[in-house]
Amino acid sequence: MKAVGICGSDVHYLREMRIAHFVVKEPMVIGHECAGVIEEVGSGVKQLAVGDRVALEPGVSCWRCRHCKGGRYNLCDDMKFFATPPVHGSLANQIVHPGDLCFKLPDNVSLEEGAMCEPLSVGVHACRRADVGPEKRVLIMGAGPIGLVTMLAARAFGAPRIVIVDVDEHRLSVAKSLGADAGVKVSTRAEDMAEEIEKIQAAMGAEIDVSLDCAGFSKTMSTALEATRAGGKVCLVGMGHNEMTVPLTSAAIREVDVVGIFRYKDTWPLCIEFLRSGKIDVKPLITHRFGFSQKDVEEAFEVSARGRDAIKVMFNL
Amino acid sequence: MKAVGICGSDVHYLREMRIAHFVVKEPMVIGHECAGVIEEVGSGVKQLAVGDRVALEPGVSCWRCRHCKGGRYNLCDDMKFFATPPVHGSLANQIVHPGDLCFKLPDNVSLEEGAMCEPLSVGVHACRRADVGPEKRVLIMGAGPIGLVTMLAARAFGAPRIVIVDVDEHRLSVAKSLGADAGVKVSTRAEDMAEEIEKIQAAMGAEIDVSLDCAGFSKTMSTALEATRAGGKVCLVGMGHNEMTVPLTSAAIREVDVVGIFRYKDTWPLCIEFLRSGKIDVKPLITHRFGFSQKDVEEAFEVSARGRDAIKVMFNL
Amino acid sequence: MKAVGICGSDVHYLREMRIAHFVVKEPMVIGHECAGVIEEVGSGVKQLAVGDRVALEPGVSCWRCRHCKGGRYNLCDDMKFFATPPVHGSLANQIVHPGDLCFKLPDNVSLEEGAMCEPLSVGVHACRRADVGPEKRVLIMGAGPIGLVTMLAARAFGAPRIVIVDVDEHRLSVAKSLGADAGVKVSTRAEDMAEEIEKIQAAMGAEIDVSLDCAGFSKTMSTALEATRAGGKVCLVGMGHNEMTVPLTSAAIREVDVVGIFRYKDTWPLCIEFLRSGKIDVKPLITHRFGFSQKDVEEAFEVSARGRDAIKVMFNL
Amino acid sequence: MKAVGICGSDVHYLREMRIAHFVVKEPMVIGHECAGVIEEVGSGVKQLAVGDRVALEPGVSCWRCRHCKGGRYNLCDDMKFFATPPVHGSLANQIVHPGDLCFKLPDNVSLEEGAMCEPLSVGVHACRRADVGPEKRVLIMGAGPIGLVTMLAARAFGAPRIVIVDVDEHRLSVAKSLGADAGVKVSTRAEDMAEEIEKIQAAMGAEIDVSLDCAGFSKTMSTALEATRAGGKVCLVGMGHNEMTVPLTSAAIREVDVVGIFRYKDTWPLCIEFLRSGKIDVKPLITHRFGFSQKDVEEAFEVSARGRDAIKVMFNL
Repeated sequence: MKAVGICGSDVHYLREMRIAHFVVKEPMVIGHECAGVIEEVGSGVKQLAVGDRVALEPGVSCWRCRHCKGGRYNLCDDMKFFATPPVHGSLANQIVHPGDLCFKLPDNVSLEEGAMCEPLSVGVHACRRADVGPEKRVLIMGAGPIGLVTMLAARAFGAPRIVIVDVDEHRLSVAKSLGADAGVKVSTRAEDMAEEIEKIQAAMGAEIDVSLDCAGFSKTMSTALEATRAGGKVCLVGMGHNEMTVPLTSAAIREVDVVGIFRYKDTWPLCIEFLRSGKIDVKPLITHRFGFSQKDVEEAFEVSARGRDAIKVMFNL
Repeated sequence: MKAVGICGSDVHYLREMRIAHFVVKEPMVIGHECAGVIEEVGSGVKQLAVGDRVALEPGVSCWRCRHCKGGRYNLCDDMKFFATPPVHGSLANQIVHPGDLCFKLPDNVSLEEGAMCEPLSVGVHACRRADVGPEKRVLIMGAGPIGLVTMLAARAFGAPRIVIVDVDEHRLSVAKSLGADAGVKVSTRAEDMAEEIEKIQAAMGAEIDVSLDCAGFSKTMSTALEATRAGGKVCLVGMGHNEMTVPLTSAAIREVDVVGIFRYKDTWPLCIEFLRSGKIDVKPLITHRFGFSQKDVEEAFEVSARGRDAIKVMFNL
Repeated sequence: MKAVGICGSDVHYLREMRIAHFVVKEPMVIGHECAGVIEEVGSGVKQLAVGDRVALEPGVSCWRCRHCKGGRYNLCDDMKFFATPPVHGSLANQIVHPGDLCFKLPDNVSLEEGAMCEPLSVGVHACRRADVGPEKRVLIMGAGPIGLVTMLAARAFGAPRIVIVDVDEHRLSVAKSLGADAGVKVSTRAEDMAEEIEKIQAAMGAEIDVSLDCAGFSKTMSTALEATRAGGKVCLVGMGHNEMTVPLTSAAIREVDVVGIFRYKDTWPLCIEFLRSGKIDVKPLITHRFGFSQKDVEEAFEVSARGRDAIKVMFNL
Repeated sequence: MKAVGICGSDVHYLREMRIAHFVVKEPMVIGHECAGVIEEVGSGVKQLAVGDRVALEPGVSCWRCRHCKGGRYNLCDDMKFFATPPVHGSLANQIVHPGDLCFKLPDNVSLEEGAMCEPLSVGVHACRRADVGPEKRVLIMGAGPIGLVTMLAARAFGAPRIVIVDVDEHRLSVAKSLGADAGVKVSTRAEDMAEEIEKIQAAMGAEIDVSLDCAGFSKTMSTALEATRAGGKVCLVGMGHNEMTVPLTSAAIREVDVVGIFRYKDTWPLCIEFLRSGKIDVKPLITHRFGFSQKDVEEAFEVSARGRDAIKVMFNL
């Protein structure tokens, strides 16, 4: 391992020892956004050689269930995934991983960028599920790390115009500097929603074809559902609330479809191509870098947990 | 006009003089489930002749907007639709209607059955949007008129097993007599939901691939979302609540997609084929028949409004 | 193994010792249409028990390549498939096979019928690729064994009308007895084609939405391309010729899409459901049965090779 | 009318007085690639005003048939299309055209560029039908005017790598200057094909996901079918031959799908967006410009007919 990023879920496991029904019962290595250099290859692995720089896809699925066979292996019930109890993560010096989940990096893509394939994959999978493309004007709710990678992905999928929404001016200005066409600041108050939707639609200047809710609260989802045009799509990416109170009937009778995502599938080759070609530049997202001493590790998690000015905190091992 | 069915929306307009933002401001003829006999044809109409028995598709769309051009004309903003203010309905002796929206009935399909193409179209469109087919086990929430036509459509689309759910034993037994494989009685209490989902899944005896919520309440939609397998689809057909409180994140991370429907598009030829071939028999749904005297009309609407034992009330003009 | 059917490819390997670039260089067991009873289960296999009656899917794919990961594992370059050199087939008393490729048969489905899942899968996969459903009128070119299973599959997928075409009256009458709505006898002469297309379209009595060419010659494919309506689909199933001379531009400018099939993927559960429910009855296709003595085997292959009155020859071991 | 481009079909009608079964029986105005300025608007037209600069979509469809209703209006049997007998074309000073087929040009898109929306639409429709996107490596057969607009469209749809093939070095160098990643010179001899496919695949350096045959001969189509990876798509755009001799079975068993195009549908808004945003620059394609005197017109058609150094000849009226 050479580069490992910190994800919100790593911080969450560290502090709470659980996420939803995944409970950490024994000491567990965290980390799942990672890249490294091959030290040894199994006899059946042909496409890799010692010394190859690779990005790692973190989940090993069963290849026996209907989801695996049907091309949606991310839904596999039997997935073994880095840092999801009881499976160890990749914030370690050495790990063993299947060859087909190690993807060679081109010369012009660094190991850090390789590690960024993981969060970027979330944005790529969301764009695929929401059919983002050159004919889709895109609204993104939330300008946090996931909102930003989703915005970068939407751009790379060809979205002609992207409006991003957040409660924080600083985040919006970061988003705009990274390529969003317009940012709209909103409140957390439900009663402001109607007015905010008008502002959002005005900022788009055209119908909103696809909305990607990277926050995941009742208000953000309601805004997305109401702002999107008839026949459009809303993709729920963030996970703020589970139970949401949303105008689902009004969305349904305009045939606004709601899709969700669970992680990603088969996204590494595309992410690497986006990085290689320069269609996506993830380097500005890496705001903090740490070594791997005890002190570094502690500070890294603190910075990451504080959020706001940190987008992505990266370990260089 | 020879046969006109009464829809819940007709009763609603009659009593409340409005549905949502559609307000009846001037006297308006109601009725939109209809069939009749051609009395006169325009010079440009080639496929119809005087005397032809036809079922009528009630909406005339603009054919200029993105929805019309893109094959989703049901979403047209400029649709002129029977009995949607200010457009008159078809509960009348004679009406003028575009030739391409009048569909010839085969000899073995009656005018009453022709009028039933309209409610059946709702079920057909729901099945299309939810991709019902021979590989999809289907859950239907609600055994009212729309639940029943949706069930008949799901059967005709090849669903291998259909479980239907309602609060009313009588409706469930009607549904089973019409072809549902199993019925599950539920309550309206939220706290019963977990147990009911277990019963529903047991009644299916396999994973639920598609759920069609023909009731449209927070509880029915929550049940549908939770009961459906990862990678499945939920279609919202009924319109009980607008704002719903539902576990949307838990659905999203299992990639259970939510789609809705607005009326239907291009369904008459398929409905007529289902009736012609006997794949669907709508005759048992027509529980009450009336003539067209003042007294008949009043009684007909009363029977229809009472619901329960009336599934479909039909005028024979 | 309890029931093994003979396929044309088995006969071909037996006689020619090769099919295309697959050359038999060492003694090889043939057979790939099979069902049997579980004698032993591996420790990781949970869904099967000794004594279970199962049908076997013959191909073991790599689960590492883009095709496997993308849900099209039938295209896997590394597939190990029964009776495709150098992999042994299943016309044997005992074989070892992955648990996830052994599918339990319901009580009302015999082992013979289970073995028929393999040829039926070809028809099912063709219907899936060609989007056969209740709105698709289907033309089938060729009433041999593959034409017949494809016809049965198209029926089960809901095709409202099926016209089948062959050069042989007897085959056509078998097809009609098995459920085809109409049969059209054609010649092998190119110059008859225009007239034959008229007859075929007249036999359909409506536009042909989907054509499934189960013969695979220049003439059958040309007929399919020309007979199919604008916006329709032609699926090439049979493999008579490789190089074909066909009116491809005239098909392209009517946006008649051409799709092909390679074997099948993930079809066993659906085939078994079709057999269980009675939507498909494959028993009439099993025209000859043999035991497993030397003499039986020789006769079985002779009968199978003679064709015509033999549809499917089955070994009962 | 202010700008009208000359298409190969215009030249063909001028010289032969027919294309296939479309025969010019009476004097007919040609021209269908056009843009102009609104002089008068009908009372029902709201989105346009006198003085608006607009590009014109040339076909008026019936909006009554299955194709129109199903979102594939380009397949309408009753289409009235500029310069397709007996309908007049648009190489005229004034024409009357439906408002919904006149698309406003942004300030930074010239009338000439607006006229280029028509040929560009062919490329856009081909890319849509072949599902070109950021994950599809694209082979283009033929570097004539249609090959070039298709290449520009593929680039705008996000194709990460495009290889273009032609018999003419000059055309290849033009294609490369316009954005193709690599060009491969081929012959018209069938016996060179195997070697040429190797060169093409080497030039791609990865699997070919989509091939767009913009020439349409047996050899170009055979090359496309054989060069494309299993599970890929070939779109037939050019119309060199009707009857083609091609290895269709070898394509079918690799599930290489063949799709065609007929003109385009609903492409103007996207083309205009591509031009507005600079994702596509069509100006280098306009190699010759003429006025509208008798002498100019004659010379323009001569230049266009000579081909080679002329890509697009444009009238400025």
